[in-house]
Amino acid sequence: MNRAAFLSTAVALAAALLASTATHADEGMWTYDNFPTAKVKQQYGANLDGAWLDRVREASVRLSGCSASFVSPEGLILTNHHCITACLSENSSKEKSLLDDGFVARNRGEEIPCRTQVADVLVGMENVTDKVEAATRGLDERAANEARKRAITGLEQACEKTTGLKCQGVALYNGGQQFLYRYKRYTDVRLVFAPETGIAAFGGDPDNFQFPRWCLDMGLLRAYENGKPVTVARPLRINFDGPKAGELVLVSGHPGSTDRLLTVDQLLALRNDELPPSLLRSNELRGRYIEFAKKGDAERRITADTLFGLENGIKVRRKQLDALLDEGMMDDKRAKEAELRARVAADPSFAGFGDPWADIAAANARARDIDTELGYLEGGAGFQSRLFRVARTLVRGAEERTKPNGERLREFTDAQLPRVQQQLAAATPVYPEVERLTMSFGFERMREWLGPDHAVVRKLLAKDSPDSLAASLIDGSKLADPAVRMALWNGGAAAIAASDDPMIKLAREIDGPARALRKRYEDEVQAPTAAAEEKIARARFKVYGTEVYPDATFTLRLNYGTVQGWVEKGSPVEPFTRLGRAFERATGQPPFSVPASWERARGKLDLSTPFNLSSNNDIIGGNSGSPLLNARGEVVGLIFDGNIHSISGSFWFDTVKNRAVAVHPAIMREALRKVYDAPALLKELGDR
Amino acid sequence: MNRAAFLSTAVALAAALLASTATHADEGMWTYDNFPTAKVKQQYGANLDGAWLDRVREASVRLSGCSASFVSPEGLILTNHHCITACLSENSSKEKSLLDDGFVARNRGEEIPCRTQVADVLVGMENVTDKVEAATRGLDERAANEARKRAITGLEQACEKTTGLKCQGVALYNGGQQFLYRYKRYTDVRLVFAPETGIAAFGGDPDNFQFPRWCLDMGLLRAYENGKPVTVARPLRINFDGPKAGELVLVSGHPGSTDRLLTVDQLLALRNDELPPSLLRSNELRGRYIEFAKKGDAERRITADTLFGLENGIKVRRKQLDALLDEGMMDDKRAKEAELRARVAADPSFAGFGDPWADIAAANARARDIDTELGYLEGGAGFQSRLFRVARTLVRGAEERTKPNGERLREFTDAQLPRVQQQLAAATPVYPEVERLTMSFGFERMREWLGPDHAVVRKLLAKDSPDSLAASLIDGSKLADPAVRMALWNGGAAAIAASDDPMIKLAREIDGPARALRKRYEDEVQAPTAAAEEKIARARFKVYGTEVYPDATFTLRLNYGTVQGWVEKGSPVEPFTRLGRAFERATGQPPFSVPASWERARGKLDLSTPFNLSSNNDIIGGNSGSPLLNARGEVVGLIFDGNIHSISGSFWFDTVKNRAVAVHPAIMREALRKVYDAPALLKELGDR
Repeated sequence: MNRAAFLSTAVALAAALLASTATHADEGMWTYDNFPTAKVKQQYGANLDGAWLDRVREASVRLSGCSASFVSPEGLILTNHHCITACLSENSSKEKSLLDDGFVARNRGEEIPCRTQVADVLVGMENVTDKVEAATRGLDERAANEARKRAITGLEQACEKTTGLKCQGVALYNGGQQFLYRYKRYTDVRLVFAPETGIAAFGGDPDNFQFPRWCLDMGLLRAYENGKPVTVARPLRINFDGPKAGELVLVSGHPGSTDRLLTVDQLLALRNDELPPSLLRSNELRGRYIEFAKKGDAERRITADTLFGLENGIKVRRKQLDALLDEGMMDDKRAKEAELRARVAADPSFAGFGDPWADIAAANARARDIDTELGYLEGGAGFQSRLFRVARTLVRGAEERTKPNGERLREFTDAQLPRVQQQLAAATPVYPEVERLTMSFGFERMREWLGPDHAVVRKLLAKDSPDSLAASLIDGSKLADPAVRMALWNGGAAAIAASDDPMIKLAREIDGPARALRKRYEDEVQAPTAAAEEKIARARFKVYGTEVYPDATFTLRLNYGTVQGWVEKGSPVEPFTRLGRAFERATGQPPFSVPASWERARGKLDLSTPFNLSSNNDIIGGNSGSPLLNARGEVVGLIFDGNIHSISGSFWFDTVKNRAVAVHPAIMREALRKVYDAPALLKELGDR
Repeated sequence: MNRAAFLSTAVALAAALLASTATHADEGMWTYDNFPTAKVKQQYGANLDGAWLDRVREASVRLSGCSASFVSPEGLILTNHHCITACLSENSSKEKSLLDDGFVARNRGEEIPCRTQVADVLVGMENVTDKVEAATRGLDERAANEARKRAITGLEQACEKTTGLKCQGVALYNGGQQFLYRYKRYTDVRLVFAPETGIAAFGGDPDNFQFPRWCLDMGLLRAYENGKPVTVARPLRINFDGPKAGELVLVSGHPGSTDRLLTVDQLLALRNDELPPSLLRSNELRGRYIEFAKKGDAERRITADTLFGLENGIKVRRKQLDALLDEGMMDDKRAKEAELRARVAADPSFAGFGDPWADIAAANARARDIDTELGYLEGGAGFQSRLFRVARTLVRGAEERTKPNGERLREFTDAQLPRVQQQLAAATPVYPEVERLTMSFGFERMREWLGPDHAVVRKLLAKDSPDSLAASLIDGSKLADPAVRMALWNGGAAAIAASDDPMIKLAREIDGPARALRKRYEDEVQAPTAAAEEKIARARFKVYGTEVYPDATFTLRLNYGTVQGWVEKGSPVEPFTRLGRAFERATGQPPFSVPASWERARGKLDLSTPFNLSSNNDIIGGNSGSPLLNARGEVVGLIFDGNIHSISGSFWFDTVKNRAVAVHPAIMREALRKVYDAPALLKELGDR
């Protein structure tokens, strides 16, 4: 071959290698319409055909922030304990905590409504890329951003009207593809079973994201319709024997968010501008909660769930920061980006393409000017209070509902309103002492980061300290009462204007500056970024083809891998743990104290029962509660965590060390049988 | 010229440019023996000759972590309020706080001893580079590290014996030069005047490192000898009118630590490995303190000083991290390092020089393996308790004092022992509830970062929680009593071995693993790093000459600049603030509440009195309390802070935005005269 041809082949090979490093063996969060069935068949001999995929998809459930699955014909939903803590909290009080004590419904009548929980099942996916592109064609970035939002809202609305289903626009490949997903939504979900937090989260924060591990992180809900348990035609079957080491296993669930397609400048913005301040803030809040919780049992109870979530988030972002500080990883990202940019530059068909990477960098530079203010006034950093969030929802809801659907803020479109109302109406307890803590904290940091002479800060704190302002707002507000909230919601703009609730007044006062910042951010940062990301996504398709998977977007994905451990600092980590070691590690003090129910049952328990297991499935936050399936589609585990190396999965998949962590079904059976004495439940779950 | 010659000239020019960028106009923390007198004369017309330098040096005072100056013939020492908070704290109680209330001694008899304060005046500097090099010649890195420490200890000892002065080895230019500094030490230092924290630190943490600013951050001590005030032959004179904008001003003081000569790998280690975990830890502790302090006035009082220091440190390290995340700055460091390495590689006289940059990188890689464990077991992260530090001092002191002076841990050499004893004997109050807070925090984080299955963690927390362990240690220990401490100190190894104080037992148990880690760190990280830094320092001398200044080492330095503001986001910041605006910014709530004494005096005060000022002097932490001098050597300000941009001064001097912040002498006079009614003090300070 001649030299020129040789060179271009070499470039193609290099490109193929680069492309293939983007989809390592067993890597990938595949959409169900693009699952690599042939590759899995070739590699593992398993035939996951269309029927298999349909059956698993229909039993896969999405909860708020989590995944789950139908595991009985009468609507039992298997998920993680840590996915139902909101339900446990809202059914707890200062005196009695379902988190501490666990819960077993002995019959249907004892099942407790989870007032803010919904359960969604994906029943259809439509590619609407052409329709959305048609709506934005020829428009500039800002107009396109608005038109895109309007087009998607319109599609959702039309879909819901014709199908009666929950319809949701989904941008895949950073906007390279637009889909309309249709969900069957269950709004009556009840609590059936939860173990004590002591065993569900044995080891607490110290063990979180660690393996070996011993957590019975499971919970059971039941979906109801019209007051009756729903009938599930094809639930998943649990195989209580679990998988073998090396066995093919699949995870069907809703990974929340990955950033594997971000540009280098976006990764640097995360590393430099977003993660450090957010981590610092969270760590201080963690300290405040911990000290507050030491005041007594009641204080510990009413903050336990929030603290758990906070510490989890801290660990995730801390390891994300570590990953982004890794120069090798960043150099790899730089090389890949340079390669794609070089390919684009060398290809005449990209004439007039512009430089979307530079566009993103410019947008990020603008973001740096407003990020902090936006975070404090519009994001959650400044007004850290549930009552304030209620007040803002009421104030904005009153205004937005007077507008045509397509022109509203996204969270107040017709499709969102039922959920907004459900949450306003739910009698979730509000603890004023916790509200004071968080709100004072938010004000104090707002003053630190925006400065005492910032106009909003001066207005708020002219004659108040963060503490005194928080106290007067929380103590003066009546918004903890759902009836008051609903009266204001139903009263609309007139009721809001007439209200002298201090929290409503605050939300009204702050709304102008906050909305202005949000608009500026959407116009100057989001719109050009979305346009540039779409361009890059199109370029990536064109150069590398479609054999890639999109970043996680909290939509249903399926991935495959095998049960396996890894090598940590030279020592192999086995993929299974067993019950006996949990008792050995118990200290008698939280978070390493085994609950009394387990101590009582200890003599009866088989200490060799497998407890948790690890596999190399490619998962991320949001996959919590996902069923781990064998090739026959049986549940052989319940995903609840990843190891510490899994956190870098936000940015790339580390095949050597990234591992998923699941509850083994054998420990579920052992616990339901011998600790919780729940034979009816076990029978419903198919145990013989 | 021919092409080769042209090229080499170009390289030399580039090198000269690079070298000159290392010493920008007005940049530099100069040692008194290398002050650029000629350059200052040329630039500003001021003649700072040897006599001028001697006079200022003799009046410059070093305190613990701070700077100060003699300002009266009878031993009055002017420094910052925030430099004497330890003295104010140790003379406070839960009921009454000198921090809250301030203090004025109306006569000598009312002056209060600061039991742990010493004051040093630099009286001589000897270059001992040759002597130290002779002691290490031909030895490998570890042996050289030991020999160097022994040689320095020996020099210090001989010096103290012959002179009766306090002698201290000082490594300048990262070990490129070794000096022996001789200090006159005053160990009887008493409190004369302190304003209320409300005005000394007006604006608190939100205003810290900000300018414009309104802080009367001043305090007065007096040095005593043999029960009488010391006589100071040539004290500095205060010029209460202060400086003019643009006027030449100099700072004589003890900048603590800069890292401007670190290699790129060292900067990355700081950025990736050191700053993030330390910041996260500090922020959580901050949250714990803040929540604890809300319990009541007593809790607020006993934590106020510590919280202030903690928040100061957080702000510093946060901005250091920001500086190190700046890709432009890092690229500049990379370019400079590459240039020096290229020069070394191209110069045959460097044959056999090796690659000290690679040696440092290798040492840092080893450090990463032990950093976390070292920090928790030997550093301050794991055992956060004053009583534990006392216990460790007693346990180690008993062992070390049995060894020859040259073989001891550095902190137990004969030169250090008087100070160690002074601190053990001081009846500084210990608050058990604060000790429990910090110690529990340390244990909890130790378990998180070392893991619950780490041998030490398992041993400590096998049947305890961090809270229960901390409580039993603190409640069971008698080490809060100085008499108990001194009995154990004087009893030596036998007393330590016989003690059943739980804190002593803990310190004994932990000593083996902690010492082993320290030894490993010294051998595997410190020794090769010291050797490599020395090599690089020698190379830098050889290539760029000696017209550079060494990194700050908490030794006396003089720098020059002018009174000036800067431009912040397009708006000019004026270099002077005035009293009136402080009252306008007051909210009535800490940290923005003006003390009652000022509110009472308000009508009498001249609201146009200059309050604080900014200048472009090159300072850093440790310079707090330094006199700001005019060309005549008069005090025209009192350095107490830098602006937010000054924090990047750790790594480079930003001539455009880095500014020092000082108290204006006019506000000192106004306050002493009209608020504190202290005419005798004012008279002693030379006011007419």
